[in-house]
Amino acid sequence: MSFDRSSVLGIDVGGTKILVGSVRLDGTVVAARRYPMDRRDRAHTLASILGAVEAYWSERRVDTPPAAIGVGLVGLTDPPNGLWLHSMSLHVDRPIDFRLDLGARYGLPVAVDNDVHAATLAELRFGVGRDVRDFIYLNVGTGLAGGVVCNGQLVRGVLNYAGELGHSLLGDSDDLCPCGRRGCVEMYASGGAIADHAQRAVERGRQTSLAPIAASGRLTSADVFRAAGTGDALALEIAERALRGVGDLLVNLVNLLNPAAVVLGGGVVSDGWLAPRLDAYVRRVALTNATRCLREIAPSSLPTDQVGLLGAATLAMEALQASAKSRTEGSS
Amino acid sequence: MSFDRSSVLGIDVGGTKILVGSVRLDGTVVAARRYPMDRRDRAHTLASILGAVEAYWSERRVDTPPAAIGVGLVGLTDPPNGLWLHSMSLHVDRPIDFRLDLGARYGLPVAVDNDVHAATLAELRFGVGRDVRDFIYLNVGTGLAGGVVCNGQLVRGVLNYAGELGHSLLGDSDDLCPCGRRGCVEMYASGGAIADHAQRAVERGRQTSLAPIAASGRLTSADVFRAAGTGDALALEIAERALRGVGDLLVNLVNLLNPAAVVLGGGVVSDGWLAPRLDAYVRRVALTNATRCLREIAPSSLPTDQVGLLGAATLAMEALQASAKSRTEGSS
Repeated sequence: MSFDRSSVLGIDVGGTKILVGSVRLDGTVVAARRYPMDRRDRAHTLASILGAVEAYWSERRVDTPPAAIGVGLVGLTDPPNGLWLHSMSLHVDRPIDFRLDLGARYGLPVAVDNDVHAATLAELRFGVGRDVRDFIYLNVGTGLAGGVVCNGQLVRGVLNYAGELGHSLLGDSDDLCPCGRRGCVEMYASGGAIADHAQRAVERGRQTSLAPIAASGRLTSADVFRAAGTGDALALEIAERALRGVGDLLVNLVNLLNPAAVVLGGGVVSDGWLAPRLDAYVRRVALTNATRCLREIAPSSLPTDQVGLLGAATLAMEALQASAKSRTEGSS
Repeated sequence: MSFDRSSVLGIDVGGTKILVGSVRLDGTVVAARRYPMDRRDRAHTLASILGAVEAYWSERRVDTPPAAIGVGLVGLTDPPNGLWLHSMSLHVDRPIDFRLDLGARYGLPVAVDNDVHAATLAELRFGVGRDVRDFIYLNVGTGLAGGVVCNGQLVRGVLNYAGELGHSLLGDSDDLCPCGRRGCVEMYASGGAIADHAQRAVERGRQTSLAPIAASGRLTSADVFRAAGTGDALALEIAERALRGVGDLLVNLVNLLNPAAVVLGGGVVSDGWLAPRLDAYVRRVALTNATRCLREIAPSSLPTDQVGLLGAATLAMEALQASAKSRTEGSS
């Protein structure tokens, strides 16, 4: 199989790996490969991305190029100019121009955005957005992040920074967040925090069925939810606090935005413990009119392990559509 | 002066009064009069509104009618169908059809929406929206309510219920809200709550310079802010708790939506104590990138006592524009 104009190239740039793949315009992922990220500094980060694309292309024996390239990134991006402005975790301390470094090299249009905007646009095009025009995409992974769609449009904000749900202050924490502030919901209601709180409780000597796995150093939020399901007191305490955190966050969002749907993404919700309880919590606590037309709060129909890639590809499709539209308008 | 096609009629329906006025398409309020609201039941509420319009028209010796009528309401509305669906405070327990009851009577198009959406649309057309496409309108009055504008469009939500900021859960209250839930920010960070907390503290015997005015039964949030400014301990405690409440609410909104501006409306912010402290609070606590392009958080440039009327009039203007657009599209 080879590239062709009916597919785009998606590049999902994460903190430890880069996923490159070909996606048809109907959202079918034709192929995908994973490459390592060397993030020791800006130059290595960029070289890792360019190397991944080069490797993918040579491994897949390209005949005809894709129609466009989309790149999903962490941190601050400038989509109209194709720039990656800043990333703390990947040491991008001055802008990377993907149109220059990637697009010009291959003679292809390139679109960029942050990974959560990209995933939200994938939901808009291929997921829940086929049915509703107002929804919230909430990703519960290592951290918490989200995308808001109103009137069928992604809310980007003035600096393309909209969606920082993880740093909402809900009053149930005084822990210091890496962002430098205290009380962010991410500090007790994300996958990373759930595992972390359990690990530390075991280390403080709390009795729990999680002790053996904590000793192995591989404790995850899925373990905590599983133990909560068996009635483990510590696990229940941590899981229920996380539920209240994500729950109150969603209650506030649902009251604010009156969405038609809330879609959950990320590894933490795929576990099964959280999603149905969240649905019940939000319906109990949010205003009646705010939830009257709200569909089930449930995991995305898109595959968790492909949503990043699909999101990156969607950026490319959006760019193609925008340029086709501007050509049509220019010629009329 | 008489009505004419270059003006619209705005009707701002409140819990105790009805404001009726003529507004030019450029936003100039030509005339406005206040009428009483008899809200003992649905029939009296509707009769009060129709009577106010009738009285206004006869008092102003109408020659030519306005181009359209806009009605700003409290509670749940259905703008596409011109319906007032529900209001607890005004006892609207089944829909009122304003196109039938008001529009048909005068042969004029009628547009309806809730008062906060109306005020937000007034901001979009005549206030901060002349400069920015992404903003939050926060009204701090007896309660707390807000409007969100993204990509130049009001966020209405699926049931036209978006904007219920007052029932956000921020963790600093366990008080029972009239909505039936506990912990709503409105219970400590609204004008009503500020006055109420001060009044009850005086009644419990707290030492404060507010005691005499509390005894008179006319204590307001402005009194509390004034006393806070002089260093009164009780007043400072209540004012600073309200500041943290509105502040955290705005921090979460700014992180979520990355707006270009936050505009404050309502009597509580016109006092002067709150607004500059809110601006400083949000800049200190919100994420740096979320506030980098945020203008001053400051009171609206629109007059506080006219924004309701201007909002209602704006609904009429929006309806005129939409119908002109659909006529143009229909004839092309």
